[in-house]
Amino acid sequence: MSDPRIDIIRRLARRPNNPALGRTIQKSRAEDIASAFALLPLAAKKSIWNSIQDQEKAAEVLASIDEQELVEMVEYIGVAKIAMLLSLIEVDDATDIISELPVELQKKILSIMEEDDRTQVEDLLAFPEDSAGGLMHLDVLQCDSQSTCRDAINQLQTTKNVEMAFYLYIENQSQHLVGVISLRALLTHPPSTKLSDIMITDLITVHPEANQEDVAKLVSRYDLLALPVVDHSNRLLGLITVDDVIDVIQDIANKNMMLMAGMNEEQDPLNRHVFKAFQQRFTWLLITLIGGIGMAEMIGMFEGSLEANAALAGFIPVILGTGGNVGTQAATIAVRNIATGHLGGRGSFSLLFREARVGSLLGLSFALVLGSYVYFTGSPMLAIAISASIMVTVVSAAILGMLVPLTLNKINIDPAAATGPFVTTGIDLVAILIYFSTCRIIIP
Amino acid sequence: MSDPRIDIIRRLARRPNNPALGRTIQKSRAEDIASAFALLPLAAKKSIWNSIQDQEKAAEVLASIDEQELVEMVEYIGVAKIAMLLSLIEVDDATDIISELPVELQKKILSIMEEDDRTQVEDLLAFPEDSAGGLMHLDVLQCDSQSTCRDAINQLQTTKNVEMAFYLYIENQSQHLVGVISLRALLTHPPSTKLSDIMITDLITVHPEANQEDVAKLVSRYDLLALPVVDHSNRLLGLITVDDVIDVIQDIANKNMMLMAGMNEEQDPLNRHVFKAFQQRFTWLLITLIGGIGMAEMIGMFEGSLEANAALAGFIPVILGTGGNVGTQAATIAVRNIATGHLGGRGSFSLLFREARVGSLLGLSFALVLGSYVYFTGSPMLAIAISASIMVTVVSAAILGMLVPLTLNKINIDPAAATGPFVTTGIDLVAILIYFSTCRIIIP
Repeated sequence: MSDPRIDIIRRLARRPNNPALGRTIQKSRAEDIASAFALLPLAAKKSIWNSIQDQEKAAEVLASIDEQELVEMVEYIGVAKIAMLLSLIEVDDATDIISELPVELQKKILSIMEEDDRTQVEDLLAFPEDSAGGLMHLDVLQCDSQSTCRDAINQLQTTKNVEMAFYLYIENQSQHLVGVISLRALLTHPPSTKLSDIMITDLITVHPEANQEDVAKLVSRYDLLALPVVDHSNRLLGLITVDDVIDVIQDIANKNMMLMAGMNEEQDPLNRHVFKAFQQRFTWLLITLIGGIGMAEMIGMFEGSLEANAALAGFIPVILGTGGNVGTQAATIAVRNIATGHLGGRGSFSLLFREARVGSLLGLSFALVLGSYVYFTGSPMLAIAISASIMVTVVSAAILGMLVPLTLNKINIDPAAATGPFVTTGIDLVAILIYFSTCRIIIP
Repeated sequence: MSDPRIDIIRRLARRPNNPALGRTIQKSRAEDIASAFALLPLAAKKSIWNSIQDQEKAAEVLASIDEQELVEMVEYIGVAKIAMLLSLIEVDDATDIISELPVELQKKILSIMEEDDRTQVEDLLAFPEDSAGGLMHLDVLQCDSQSTCRDAINQLQTTKNVEMAFYLYIENQSQHLVGVISLRALLTHPPSTKLSDIMITDLITVHPEANQEDVAKLVSRYDLLALPVVDHSNRLLGLITVDDVIDVIQDIANKNMMLMAGMNEEQDPLNRHVFKAFQQRFTWLLITLIGGIGMAEMIGMFEGSLEANAALAGFIPVILGTGGNVGTQAATIAVRNIATGHLGGRGSFSLLFREARVGSLLGLSFALVLGSYVYFTGSPMLAIAISASIMVTVVSAAILGMLVPLTLNKINIDPAAATGPFVTTGIDLVAILIYFSTCRIIIP
């Protein structure tokens, strides 16, 4: 699934002093050039960078490359040149670039930026990166509600480039946001029409401190192209556009996937710091390792049963494995439904009840399959013990797997975060206890 | 994280003959009404439906509810009324609704739709739902390249409502798509300017048979608001808008998450057919159950070692668990990078090499932790055997976990689909073999 537009840049950049590289770069989009940076050696990155002639394109490339590459390039390019390039792009993109740099570099760059730009960047840096304020653009088309369509069109013709130039936001005389008009509506009404007569007043807005997950939900549910950010007096601060929200949605999806496997989102494979990756994963795996030692201790308590019947050991993996799988499925369903916001009112309860019923059916079937196998290859008593164990384990796994993320969500902990290690280790411990206790009771 | 806008509808709908419901429905957006349908009993759904007075809003609600609810409501409302409601919304939305219905219902509704609408719906139904053709809208603003800005604005003022009214697509005299102009550009150039002089010619387009994953990648990489769909002679067929792509991105994320836990995307919890859910999950879990029986057989071969040293059984869970976790992490990293398209050229190789190094570090650390525990609580020989086993298991798990999805992707099988069951079962079997063989060799 590699992309020819990106591959050709990569291939050309690997050969030093290649004149074809310059020609290709000139025809390439900034996004493709940025994608080509990933996984290339530093020398090749430098060749690509030096082949970009258009300064604005160069700045856009900086805005699109990954954090680690950005730091590398900023060090190579030097702060003076960077400050110049940042002045060529939108303030919010410049802010995004600056926010990814180490603090000392940030200070150096800010100190040589122009007064106006610096103040705006500093204002934006004050909002957390994952809040509505951190996502918003500052340049918004605004008009007074008493103006006419003609006034608005005149204003449009004289305004510099703005980010989302398809909507015109309308404020009243106290500068409160009161409505929105699409460019299309401006064109299809007589020039003397007052904006307040044709504006849409039923606006969806957010406050700057709203988190990015909620922003993504609003944009996706109401199919918005842009979402105005207002302060608590309903004054327009900025605008979040749908393209930034797409990035948020992909980030959230990645984060959930990584969290469920016990890694955090910074586990970026393009990040070459193997030792850092190891550290992050080790911490989480250590929990399960300690859980594993707990299990060894627990199994040790049943050493008598094991010495009397060594075949019992053989079924440990299948009991634990099936319990773990059913638990993970239940947790995934819960996390997914929390993420899509499908759980309101009694939703959690019906979800749990449904999962308990599916779990019972699964438990019964496994008891039947595994029980028959043991019956025909081992003893009837062992068959009963193992059937009972897997049945109870699977049902408990289904309920626990769903209950843990639902509970975490209720107490405002990210449900995906803790789902992996705790559910798995918890279910394993419960399963071992159920298995050996059942065996001890049933097999004399 | 429940939404008050939705919860209030749900609460009111549960009480029969509630006059407040009608008032709330009238003030609510179609998307919120549709969300409220989920998980409600049929009677409450009917009350909501009957409270919707605006016919167009009713049609929009139908377009937003889930498949199962849609079928339920269509049966309640009747085909004649449905056909009428479908004529009120965009053809592509109507097609989406029809495509979710059983074939007999589709035929009935199509047969009573008006000729014009029917032909368009039938044309759209011919494209697979998950292709660019299945995603596109048919109403696009088009203009001849020889027209002027004035002509274009006149045309805009007389065209009915279209889906993405911010871009005007330009075709030449042979009806080939040659450029695009934003509404803003129309406003900021003198009325007599020829469109061909100001249009942007560097267009990104797709063919109707492109799959939706590729559409999503293009829209997200280039921050597009709309993506034109053209045939192989470069004639404009339709337009894909960013709001539909957001749905695709969320579907893909959900699908990957569900697939990795061994469920398919139809595992919708709002779907109440417990038995169907059971069937789908059972099939996959059966594979791991059979793998588990294989493990029992394998452990049985080492019954001699187990009878001599029952403590060996205690470490089965931790060896399998750690191997499984590391394997899942590796697989998640691989799936994520395949999905984001970060793997081009030598990317797969560096990813694998990096994972092998992280795996070695993890294996070494676990060997140290677990070995020390066994050394102080058991025998030195057992400590060496268990350290060696966990080390080899973890490294194999890291490599296998990454290799399986990378290989599946190379041979064009969805890497997320097979990652869960096969990797887990495979790693488990390898781990058991490594563990007992090592123990037999090291412990006399």
